[in-house]
Amino acid sequence: MCRFLAWIGDPRFIDEFVLNAGQSLVTQSRSALIGKTSLNADGFGLAWYGDRDLPCVYKDVHPAWSDENLKQIASHIKARLFLAHVRASTSTAISRNNCHPFSKGRWSFMHNGQLGGHLKLRQKLDVMIPVECYDQRYGATDSEAIFLIAVGLGLDRSPISAMEQAVGKVEMLAREAGHTPHMRFSACWSDGEKVYAARYASDRFVPSLFYRLQEDGIVVCSEPLDEDESGWIEISPGTAITTDGRTLEKVEFRPQACVVNT
Amino acid sequence: MCRFLAWIGDPRFIDEFVLNAGQSLVTQSRSALIGKTSLNADGFGLAWYGDRDLPCVYKDVHPAWSDENLKQIASHIKARLFLAHVRASTSTAISRNNCHPFSKGRWSFMHNGQLGGHLKLRQKLDVMIPVECYDQRYGATDSEAIFLIAVGLGLDRSPISAMEQAVGKVEMLAREAGHTPHMRFSACWSDGEKVYAARYASDRFVPSLFYRLQEDGIVVCSEPLDEDESGWIEISPGTAITTDGRTLEKVEFRPQACVVNT
Amino acid sequence: MCRFLAWIGDPRFIDEFVLNAGQSLVTQSRSALIGKTSLNADGFGLAWYGDRDLPCVYKDVHPAWSDENLKQIASHIKARLFLAHVRASTSTAISRNNCHPFSKGRWSFMHNGQLGGHLKLRQKLDVMIPVECYDQRYGATDSEAIFLIAVGLGLDRSPISAMEQAVGKVEMLAREAGHTPHMRFSACWSDGEKVYAARYASDRFVPSLFYRLQEDGIVVCSEPLDEDESGWIEISPGTAITTDGRTLEKVEFRPQACVVNT
Amino acid sequence: MCRFLAWIGDPRFIDEFVLNAGQSLVTQSRSALIGKTSLNADGFGLAWYGDRDLPCVYKDVHPAWSDENLKQIASHIKARLFLAHVRASTSTAISRNNCHPFSKGRWSFMHNGQLGGHLKLRQKLDVMIPVECYDQRYGATDSEAIFLIAVGLGLDRSPISAMEQAVGKVEMLAREAGHTPHMRFSACWSDGEKVYAARYASDRFVPSLFYRLQEDGIVVCSEPLDEDESGWIEISPGTAITTDGRTLEKVEFRPQACVVNT
Repeated sequence: MCRFLAWIGDPRFIDEFVLNAGQSLVTQSRSALIGKTSLNADGFGLAWYGDRDLPCVYKDVHPAWSDENLKQIASHIKARLFLAHVRASTSTAISRNNCHPFSKGRWSFMHNGQLGGHLKLRQKLDVMIPVECYDQRYGATDSEAIFLIAVGLGLDRSPISAMEQAVGKVEMLAREAGHTPHMRFSACWSDGEKVYAARYASDRFVPSLFYRLQEDGIVVCSEPLDEDESGWIEISPGTAITTDGRTLEKVEFRPQACVVNT
Repeated sequence: MCRFLAWIGDPRFIDEFVLNAGQSLVTQSRSALIGKTSLNADGFGLAWYGDRDLPCVYKDVHPAWSDENLKQIASHIKARLFLAHVRASTSTAISRNNCHPFSKGRWSFMHNGQLGGHLKLRQKLDVMIPVECYDQRYGATDSEAIFLIAVGLGLDRSPISAMEQAVGKVEMLAREAGHTPHMRFSACWSDGEKVYAARYASDRFVPSLFYRLQEDGIVVCSEPLDEDESGWIEISPGTAITTDGRTLEKVEFRPQACVVNT
Repeated sequence: MCRFLAWIGDPRFIDEFVLNAGQSLVTQSRSALIGKTSLNADGFGLAWYGDRDLPCVYKDVHPAWSDENLKQIASHIKARLFLAHVRASTSTAISRNNCHPFSKGRWSFMHNGQLGGHLKLRQKLDVMIPVECYDQRYGATDSEAIFLIAVGLGLDRSPISAMEQAVGKVEMLAREAGHTPHMRFSACWSDGEKVYAARYASDRFVPSLFYRLQEDGIVVCSEPLDEDESGWIEISPGTAITTDGRTLEKVEFRPQACVVNT
Repeated sequence: MCRFLAWIGDPRFIDEFVLNAGQSLVTQSRSALIGKTSLNADGFGLAWYGDRDLPCVYKDVHPAWSDENLKQIASHIKARLFLAHVRASTSTAISRNNCHPFSKGRWSFMHNGQLGGHLKLRQKLDVMIPVECYDQRYGATDSEAIFLIAVGLGLDRSPISAMEQAVGKVEMLAREAGHTPHMRFSACWSDGEKVYAARYASDRFVPSLFYRLQEDGIVVCSEPLDEDESGWIEISPGTAITTDGRTLEKVEFRPQACVVNT
């Protein structure tokens, strides 16, 4: 399991949320309050959208609290849209290629979740990645595979539904192979214009996901960044959100239903 | 392209060949004399056989010359059988998972070579890896894929012929897709009992491979470790060797013929 | 604060204590049971004595639980004498040069403790290091400084008393500058023949230190490696031990008294 | 010896000079054309001035060509003033703390050069660092020491003359100890407003230093970034420059004279 956050709105320094908040992402790397593991120290990553079309991605394998470069970058980069992630490896190696966010073209993606029997299903996952995305299959995580599968299923055209289908197809693999939990999925992704996020599980242990509406934008995160309970809204299981930083829209996110329908 | 060496014989400190020889492997990491790239600074690795059945594998992403741990380990470990490798990445990421030697069970493997269109063929390579080996497909190199494919083809039963078939099958992929060079392959592998090595290419640019018979054992290497020309014997293209450190046997290594025959 | 252990006796695989014990050192890197910080994830190090006079030192900046090389080395190296350490940085950078054990010649040294106002006293500490040791002042920790100062005070001749004086002199710096705690010190050091350890503090918060007598040798450690309470003996504050793996001798360790006396 | 460049002028993407130029800094990390070592692969660093008063510093120990993070950051950050450096270690460890640029407050500093007998003089250098700067003495290089000594000598008030005195004092150490070369020094530093650079040696082997006036700013660099010989102006030995990106001023830089005068 992992922890993440995203910001979209007026430009903000990344360190406000990643370093300075009471329960900042770096604090969560040492002691997350929600979730299976309090420790998320197997690497970290940032993706922000700035002067180029593509996101700038910075990842490393150290614990987030111990990387001086992360402190520097987070405290100097001001962006209207950024994603940040700290990793707790479930099974795959601790390597930059396995750190989130992943990116392809304008898209960036980060994930917290679990796929039953992932190590045994890896080759089947790899086969589901479209060949034209395979040169960007850098690592070995199920997260990256789900992302690239979603790209192949039309993330550009329908950002929520392509992800829903990708998750559904991958869940089906676990279901057919009898591995549990079939799917636990909390994720956030962006094309540089909007931020998308979804929360879902095939059982009742749905990874947490929250957002907060602020005057100048919207934060999405795995767990509240401070103790002010009033501001944080929990996203319901089976729900996806889309936001441009001012408005926020909710839709159903039902991967299995979606696969069954096809 | 990369550089490597192996030792089998009476126990020797690893640093004799890796650090102290005139044209040691660490020297080759800065300035190899033979081969396409004089610089082999994209990581390194050691595998040695000691008190356990499995090899001990130590890899890192730094240039070999700059890793203090490598100096320490190479100068303290004495082994009757070891493999050492310095990497020049052709296309895949610089990551521990992409460093040689690779290992599975008792087997270790290291490689210097090139597969035309590797990045485009990666998914097809991955599919050729037997599912029971796929949890050890840690990285993205063609080298690791060839090794795991060979394991699946019976490396345990017939160490030369399984490798020959694996190389043949992979070459066929490049050939069918029209990528050149189809295959350039110089490699060395071991089960802890014997050292195997082969030299082959589908064109006339065959990566170099040498050995030297010493009183107390045999060195196999990409290029001579000193300027004493008398001692170093070049392995002919299309040839594989098997050695237990005292005797050395040569056989043909003809991947394509072998694939055509099946 | 940090965690460490040492073994002296019949040769043992390092992983028995570092990886496999119930409360192994790697477990302590995630969740130490005693001490100020449960997390000791700012790097690790090993020093073992083998075929050479000098110890082999292997250190890296990753959390001990996430370093594949550590797993490999710990499970393949069998040694009659080894030291192992996991670090929780109090103030200085996370860098290989700041990881324990430190070594000079045959000596290796590791430490868990605290020096009040360390960052402000650093230059004074550096000045106390004998000039002939200064080329081995690689990092910035107070631990390394205390070790090198002890070398200068005759660690070769009197391993306990030189350390006692070094600690006393450094404590005096903190005392004079009015920084608290003046000194908290739990450490272990070796010349490859014997293992020395000491436990001391200028206040009542003395870092923990234990040992266990086994049939085949002696373990010294920051905290018990399993829940079997009968075997672990706590070293009293103000005490140093010397052991060759069969016998164990205790003496007083009173740094301030020792400095006052000179 | 090392290679570096600085830009001051209209905002430019860092990758134009660091990655994309014909003889870019990353190319120089593999094969510098001028200087003692063609290979500068012992780490790298960037410092740029953006939305904050302090520079943002990003450093790592990998060769510049192999760091994906460097590619990302260099191609996304656009700045009016930046410094970039690739390192060839002469003696000290390969560690982030030994990578340039160094920074203190608004100042950043990078260096290419040599101090005779540096390892033997290290403690004397450390003593010359003002105590209030010593908590920022992170590494072990002579470069960082010279920078912090210059800070102590009034870099804020007189950026050229404080550096001149610092270099002079350090050269005196080598001269008194009889180590050669006494001093070879090519460096570049900035307070975020102007860029300063100086070229000097106590013998005739003066490390190279160039600049180019462009319509939109000024580049300072160890060696020309392309083969267009017309644009690059060599700075004469014993000379320092000051530039705000539009105008450029030259003054004498005579460290020994300056020390003798005091």
